[in-house]
Amino acid sequence: MQSFGNARLAAIKPSAIRAIHDKKRDTSIDLGMGQPSLKPDVEPFEAALSWVRKHGSPYAPPGGLRELRESVARIYGGSHFPSAANVAVLNGSQEGIYLAIKALVDPNADEVLLTDPAYLSYQRCCDLEGVQYRTITLSADDGFAIKADALLDSITPATRLIMLGSPGNPTASVMEEEQIRRLARGLMDRRGPPVFVAVDEVYRELTFTGKPYPSLLDHYPHAIGLHSLSKSCALTGLRVGFLIGPETCVEAVVRAHGLIMLNVNMFAQRVALDIMRDPRRLHAHHAWYEAQRRVLIESAYSNGLHIIEPQGSFYSLLALPETWSGSEAAADHLLERYDVVTIPGAIFGAASEGYLRLSWVAPPDLLVHGLERIAQFCSSTPG
Amino acid sequence: MQSFGNARLAAIKPSAIRAIHDKKRDTSIDLGMGQPSLKPDVEPFEAALSWVRKHGSPYAPPGGLRELRESVARIYGGSHFPSAANVAVLNGSQEGIYLAIKALVDPNADEVLLTDPAYLSYQRCCDLEGVQYRTITLSADDGFAIKADALLDSITPATRLIMLGSPGNPTASVMEEEQIRRLARGLMDRRGPPVFVAVDEVYRELTFTGKPYPSLLDHYPHAIGLHSLSKSCALTGLRVGFLIGPETCVEAVVRAHGLIMLNVNMFAQRVALDIMRDPRRLHAHHAWYEAQRRVLIESAYSNGLHIIEPQGSFYSLLALPETWSGSEAAADHLLERYDVVTIPGAIFGAASEGYLRLSWVAPPDLLVHGLERIAQFCSSTPG
Repeated sequence: MQSFGNARLAAIKPSAIRAIHDKKRDTSIDLGMGQPSLKPDVEPFEAALSWVRKHGSPYAPPGGLRELRESVARIYGGSHFPSAANVAVLNGSQEGIYLAIKALVDPNADEVLLTDPAYLSYQRCCDLEGVQYRTITLSADDGFAIKADALLDSITPATRLIMLGSPGNPTASVMEEEQIRRLARGLMDRRGPPVFVAVDEVYRELTFTGKPYPSLLDHYPHAIGLHSLSKSCALTGLRVGFLIGPETCVEAVVRAHGLIMLNVNMFAQRVALDIMRDPRRLHAHHAWYEAQRRVLIESAYSNGLHIIEPQGSFYSLLALPETWSGSEAAADHLLERYDVVTIPGAIFGAASEGYLRLSWVAPPDLLVHGLERIAQFCSSTPG
Repeated sequence: MQSFGNARLAAIKPSAIRAIHDKKRDTSIDLGMGQPSLKPDVEPFEAALSWVRKHGSPYAPPGGLRELRESVARIYGGSHFPSAANVAVLNGSQEGIYLAIKALVDPNADEVLLTDPAYLSYQRCCDLEGVQYRTITLSADDGFAIKADALLDSITPATRLIMLGSPGNPTASVMEEEQIRRLARGLMDRRGPPVFVAVDEVYRELTFTGKPYPSLLDHYPHAIGLHSLSKSCALTGLRVGFLIGPETCVEAVVRAHGLIMLNVNMFAQRVALDIMRDPRRLHAHHAWYEAQRRVLIESAYSNGLHIIEPQGSFYSLLALPETWSGSEAAADHLLERYDVVTIPGAIFGAASEGYLRLSWVAPPDLLVHGLERIAQFCSSTPG
């Protein structure tokens, strides 16, 4: 533990997910990981290389390439955010999460609302910036769905930002259109300064509800969308993400981004631009994910495992038997004795204790094997 | 001006350099810019593409590719920082500046020392993080050289970090080896917790003193080096930078980096790795810069201009005639009437008021033309 410098940084606990991965063996079946075993299309890389041959590797503008921002606005901007000025190109959606919290919230006065469970990073960015937050508990009874009324009831005059994930991580739950409309209406009816709602939509191309993805960005002028090419295009290492929202928000975010790191890698932006020119590419892997999801569901049921069927993302929550309700001990034991990596639900909040988060992007035979081993584990007893 | 969110961010003035560039015309001769007209070698990009063909685009580790960190330590680590654990791979040296200030300084207790003049970003990162700083005035009489005694005399018990540039921007001055030794000795002789000294060395491959580059990293165990491939390899748009220093510092910086943006673009790290495997590539453009520098010096003298001969970087400070001592008005006038972009010295601090910063990386004929026009301007009178 460092004894100098930024005390808020020093107080943030090391990532438990990383600690689990560090214990992983070469033989382990990894159902913990957040990146698919898919390979990306190399064509956009080739297009970017041709560009570099001609133009070299100059700085990109602080907010990103104009043409890229325009494409992103067209694809993700919904009814309220149609233009380049509504989009910031950032170093992955992670930077979008960080900058939404850093730039849009006053740490001395404002408060952020989060869900429990949620992707841990929302909380950690608040902690790093000294921003207060409260959590709304989601219920396992309805698959950890996000409900408008619970959010609206929790808002106080200090609430400046609500941070949601849809599809959620670890919940794999997609917020329903009706709830989105209700939330937007409720927020519009309030007096006082607007409450921003940032929705982490990085898994929006990976939904399996049979319906189009419902986005708050279609319904609420103070919405902020966070996107990335990491999940849709198997480009986790590209580190290109987008923050979409009101111009004033984007301006503040771009200003902070410029001070922190100037701009995003030009080559990566050219790759992104090439992909965005043909947005069907964002859905190119959907069939692969759908097939993986079927393997997950069939194999889970045939092994008598209780999972919450994922509506989106590439995760699923598995309910532990009562004998194994402590998810951290369960994940440890599962790795040590059965050589399967899973992530304890407790990491994401108290509400997902008693669950393990499985990712289902490993090669199918390993996924099936892993689930079989988990079934053996579930029928074992602790100690 | 935003009326919500982070007040420290909102209070930071927009970049005056950007404002000048926004006024630039298509016909303008640009002696303001911070990126050379050189094209980078594309071979490392081809090597990176081959890697992507084979391995896709997975996440890199939070601190960067191990092999890249090792190469960087070998090349830049000096006597004190020999291993991968001494290096963080970041999104340009800009992120290194930001994270050195964010992670290593306690905003509630510590203070940073800067020079006047200095690259504006050091100050702005302090402002963004609410970190107190004081400045040490450099003197035009000795070419704005950084002197050890002036720094040592200014240290108080609150001083935790000294931030220097060598070669400096805008000064183009290289800190002398004797001064470096003296500073290291003086700091080692002090009691109390160590004072970190971060040296922005992004122009270290571009020195013209005829001597090897003297680095504090060879002399002081609490030094921090900031590097980048932007300047040495004409790769400003690659956004790969390095922070080198004590393991505890690197750990804190990598932790903050992970929270803010996870990790740096894998493709860009592969490009960097390929370059670092043959470090001669870092010096590939030196002859080009030397030739440019000769054009600058000869043309300045033949036009009767008073410049401080650059020891390093690709900048040079030009002394304005007394009739034009206000550098902001001078730069405005020069752009408006003579169509030449230069940067007012006042932007970098009170000590460089009365100077213009010229960059000398434009094509030689434009550089010569630009200097001729500046000479015409200098012999004109205001109003």
